[in-house]
Amino acid sequence: MPAASKSFAQGDLQDQKVAGYQSALGVTRPQTVSLPGFRTQSGFTFEAVDVSYLTLGKLAAARDNAILVCHALSGSAHVAGLHPDTQRPGWWDFHVGPGKAIDTDKFFVICANVLGGCSGTTGPASINPKTGKPYGMAFPSVTVRDMVAVQAKLVAHLGIAKILAVIGGSMGGMQALAWATDFPERLQHCVPIATCPSHGAMQIAFNEIGRHAILSDPNWHGGNYSEAHPPAHGLSVARMVGHVTYLSEFSMTHKFGRQRQAEATAAHKDQFSIESYLHHQGESFVKRFDPNSYLYLTRALDRFDLFESQPPDAMLKRIRARFLVVSFSSDWLYPPVQSRELVRLLKRANIPVTYVNLDTDYGHDSFLIENPPFANLIRDYLEHGRQHGLHHPPAGRLETAAK
Amino acid sequence: MPAASKSFAQGDLQDQKVAGYQSALGVTRPQTVSLPGFRTQSGFTFEAVDVSYLTLGKLAAARDNAILVCHALSGSAHVAGLHPDTQRPGWWDFHVGPGKAIDTDKFFVICANVLGGCSGTTGPASINPKTGKPYGMAFPSVTVRDMVAVQAKLVAHLGIAKILAVIGGSMGGMQALAWATDFPERLQHCVPIATCPSHGAMQIAFNEIGRHAILSDPNWHGGNYSEAHPPAHGLSVARMVGHVTYLSEFSMTHKFGRQRQAEATAAHKDQFSIESYLHHQGESFVKRFDPNSYLYLTRALDRFDLFESQPPDAMLKRIRARFLVVSFSSDWLYPPVQSRELVRLLKRANIPVTYVNLDTDYGHDSFLIENPPFANLIRDYLEHGRQHGLHHPPAGRLETAAK
Repeated sequence: MPAASKSFAQGDLQDQKVAGYQSALGVTRPQTVSLPGFRTQSGFTFEAVDVSYLTLGKLAAARDNAILVCHALSGSAHVAGLHPDTQRPGWWDFHVGPGKAIDTDKFFVICANVLGGCSGTTGPASINPKTGKPYGMAFPSVTVRDMVAVQAKLVAHLGIAKILAVIGGSMGGMQALAWATDFPERLQHCVPIATCPSHGAMQIAFNEIGRHAILSDPNWHGGNYSEAHPPAHGLSVARMVGHVTYLSEFSMTHKFGRQRQAEATAAHKDQFSIESYLHHQGESFVKRFDPNSYLYLTRALDRFDLFESQPPDAMLKRIRARFLVVSFSSDWLYPPVQSRELVRLLKRANIPVTYVNLDTDYGHDSFLIENPPFANLIRDYLEHGRQHGLHHPPAGRLETAAK
Repeated sequence: MPAASKSFAQGDLQDQKVAGYQSALGVTRPQTVSLPGFRTQSGFTFEAVDVSYLTLGKLAAARDNAILVCHALSGSAHVAGLHPDTQRPGWWDFHVGPGKAIDTDKFFVICANVLGGCSGTTGPASINPKTGKPYGMAFPSVTVRDMVAVQAKLVAHLGIAKILAVIGGSMGGMQALAWATDFPERLQHCVPIATCPSHGAMQIAFNEIGRHAILSDPNWHGGNYSEAHPPAHGLSVARMVGHVTYLSEFSMTHKFGRQRQAEATAAHKDQFSIESYLHHQGESFVKRFDPNSYLYLTRALDRFDLFESQPPDAMLKRIRARFLVVSFSSDWLYPPVQSRELVRLLKRANIPVTYVNLDTDYGHDSFLIENPPFANLIRDYLEHGRQHGLHHPPAGRLETAAK
């Protein structure tokens, strides 16, 4: 681990400026594949979908060691390693690499940018072949199930019939859940982290504030903004809201409290450090994220309902995977109570499930930061899955969370 | 109580459309007084400050039954009764009136719009006598202590040497605290509700998102917007953020959940009810609040520090008032832990204090809504104070909160 690890306690690696950060993977560059013929849940047909993806490690001859990592709202295919253009580490470089929780010496790791995203996979900023211009709001509505269906095509393209595990946090956790119901025969383990089967009113509310900020930015222009003048202020506000919800009261108090920013770096006199931090997060996000993607992806999150408004049992009886469900005690955006309810439903449906509520202080961001108990949990679970195939890890051992 | 009381469970009365709402006070209209010569903490001198205020009930011959009610961020002098222009009830009509918790048959109630506000008291939208135009950002910075100093002048103007109690929630609670330290000989009881001695990083963060939304609205124009084109989008986003923080997870789930809005009233298909609610709150706030005031008042909140960065003891030894401190179990914006810390410091300074953490489900809004346990608590405390002057209510009786 890098000596400067303390500075990573907040936020994900993508937005950190980390002098001298080393990744054991060195430089990694996602590639793009064009997958023909994809129809969305809403009935729109793409002649082809571009998918940006990264693979790490080696696919075993038996093709049984593939792990699909699904990214969260602001992530991309660049899960680990240093990006050749930005030199920034991938968003899960703490947890993916040789000897890490998701060990690239043992597993073949796949991570793909989601449909509707803006980091290489087809999304609202992509060129609409019918008009020669970006889709903008003419992009069809995207669902979490659409994202997963595109990933399933990618996995098939890579010649993998069955994945060992699908793992993801937050929006990535929703994708893991949708994999388990929509492609039950094609995964062995499902690891949804800090997520839920559907958003409640507060989760929708925070997303809607972000969307409203983008939509009411005059630069948005009905989604047809120019690259030079995007609705940057709106997107920045959206990201600031997001960041506050990703942190915990404790982590903010601990890191910022009522500290004032040094005058030299403050936008105005007497600025609190937390204000500068949020401004920085907002501004750096604007440089790497498309506002329309933000609208589409947050809508997908809000509309996702694992059970599609049906009694859960009908949906759950499709499932063949075994589950490791992880939540974090200080996560108030995706509170543990939502994971516990999911676990209750899985158990009622006789699906093997291990649940761990980790006692960490860092809120929703707990899954993105350096977090040895979390890393050990994932490592142990996967190691057991690798050695014993479909066998379930010994129940009980993982039921208690280490601090 | 009105039969439609269930519909008040969310938000404050000012933003509710309540058909047939009756106030026991009938129509009430604040008046305005010009108070000469006021110097702010920052050193700016106003030749005169206009103060909008409302009085209810009768001042006793002994002038010993005055209660000053301090309003929160979005409040005004119009604490109770129906406004003659809007027909809307005052923001605390549930709790102020004949026979109510703050009984206007017994007490002389005073409520004044704060300095820096936008409902009749001098603020950024007022005309700067030096330019003949609104102050805008030329308005001096305002502190909670400035607000209180103006109120003290008003109270003196009304011929009252000593107030029986100063009561307020949220920003109003900060004012109550500042009264106790800054005018110790001029109040007998201090009732800070759902508040804190200084904001932590998360409270500052949410305010800063609102400010940033206003400042980055192109209509803001450095604070010199026209009345016809205010930065309405920015202010609306700020209010939406505020509203989410005022509610609780429970109240949002209970009232909205994943309910969809009826198509007829939805801005777009498939809109969730929580989204429509937030839009409505944002839009109605824009009609009654000045964006620059929002900037000035939230800055005052964030910078307020009861102890002025000194060890608390020095400040607390000035205090002569007795305290009733109230918090709400589900309030995550001003969490009970902040009130408990305040109570600990007051007790350590040998200040008589009764503390009640009320077990309500409605978040920070708990002090604004119909809430019989809260009303009874305030009523009992004040009744005792009225009958026994400076005597303290029997300890213990109020220490436990009724559900």
